[in-house]
Amino acid sequence: MSQLQRMTIAPSQLQQEQILLTPQQQHYLKRVLRLRDRDRFIVMDGLGKWWLAHITGEQAQVLEELTVKTELSVSTTLLVALPKGSGFDEVVRSCTELGVACIAPVLSDRTLLNPSPQKLERWRRIAAEAAEQSERAFVPTILEPVGFNDAVANATATHRYICEARGEYPHLKNVLTQISGEIVIAIGPEGGWTDRELEQALAHSFQPVSLGKRILRAVTAPLVALSLISAACEL
Amino acid sequence: MSQLQRMTIAPSQLQQEQILLTPQQQHYLKRVLRLRDRDRFIVMDGLGKWWLAHITGEQAQVLEELTVKTELSVSTTLLVALPKGSGFDEVVRSCTELGVACIAPVLSDRTLLNPSPQKLERWRRIAAEAAEQSERAFVPTILEPVGFNDAVANATATHRYICEARGEYPHLKNVLTQISGEIVIAIGPEGGWTDRELEQALAHSFQPVSLGKRILRAVTAPLVALSLISAACEL
Repeated sequence: MSQLQRMTIAPSQLQQEQILLTPQQQHYLKRVLRLRDRDRFIVMDGLGKWWLAHITGEQAQVLEELTVKTELSVSTTLLVALPKGSGFDEVVRSCTELGVACIAPVLSDRTLLNPSPQKLERWRRIAAEAAEQSERAFVPTILEPVGFNDAVANATATHRYICEARGEYPHLKNVLTQISGEIVIAIGPEGGWTDRELEQALAHSFQPVSLGKRILRAVTAPLVALSLISAACEL
Repeated sequence: MSQLQRMTIAPSQLQQEQILLTPQQQHYLKRVLRLRDRDRFIVMDGLGKWWLAHITGEQAQVLEELTVKTELSVSTTLLVALPKGSGFDEVVRSCTELGVACIAPVLSDRTLLNPSPQKLERWRRIAAEAAEQSERAFVPTILEPVGFNDAVANATATHRYICEARGEYPHLKNVLTQISGEIVIAIGPEGGWTDRELEQALAHSFQPVSLGKRILRAVTAPLVALSLISAACEL
């Protein structure tokens, strides 16, 4: 199965086992991938479902639904302060590989960058590509950037963590035992969270955690957190 | 302590509590960092020792030895197939942050790139910078690239792992309980190890392990492995 090409469609494109391909998708399948009539490929709806399909003329038809086992057993939202430069591309790509469900870029006291709509579009494209490459069934949601206080105030997950490099907090691995349902984890910018931000998070029931004794870059910390969360979900 | 500037010296530069600075180091301390006589900074020998020192004229003097707690309790060697492009820079930087002791670039069946001496020099510089930034006491060793078979044949660590994406192997986190001493872990190129390489590793007592159900890029897998190893070393 890993040899078949994969493509993500909007759920509305699937109607009664027929897949209504867009002109771009037709071009991609027939010109770029050079698939011909009856050639098979995998269709994902980005919401957890996979199907085996084949080309029929200008459209495609579902042959069977596939069972996927590549998603985490917990739904993880990453609240992450936007790093400088192009570092966020790599955060989106790697965290998608590691199973993140949702990435919420936050504007923190130390990073007031407000990214352009083109950036957001770019991150969504990277997430879709990375989900395909890592054989996930689900394309993570990339939210519009939001202020830190709104992000923590609106968190609904049962398990809420904020990573803080300085201070004597429990290690993330020690709070991730017997986890289920939803996790939200906040990871700060270069220089860390301000005291005010940490207080805001605590006021909204976020638990401060450590990612270890070494100081990590803002672009490394999300990968470490997701590595530990995804490992905690494995048997 | 985190506010003080840090500099790595060769062990031979320290003689009877005097630090014999090179002209480059003098320039860096006095012109770039603008330190003046009696200003204090941290000196690391890259082998696990830190000292508080201060400037005395053209040289520096040790004031006291410092205790550091930022190193892993196990010594981890990463055998890693060279990825295409500049991906190795990021592997060196991130794995240094995460506490790796030694990185051995290997030439695998699927990556026969033989990097230039300039590349090796560059990776060593990145490792030194990343060790300073992450407040480590130890600069990881970057070995000369070596063939995969030699690398596995010469491994001396008690704990030997090879990461393999396809196949039903135990998860790395499950073999890392009560670990001590030395670990060597081999991480493959895009496309994975060949069957021949996997057999060679098994013949040298490497245990195949999984990093989870999702397919990771060659540049992400080392970070995930080091994240789990460094977490396993934390209380």
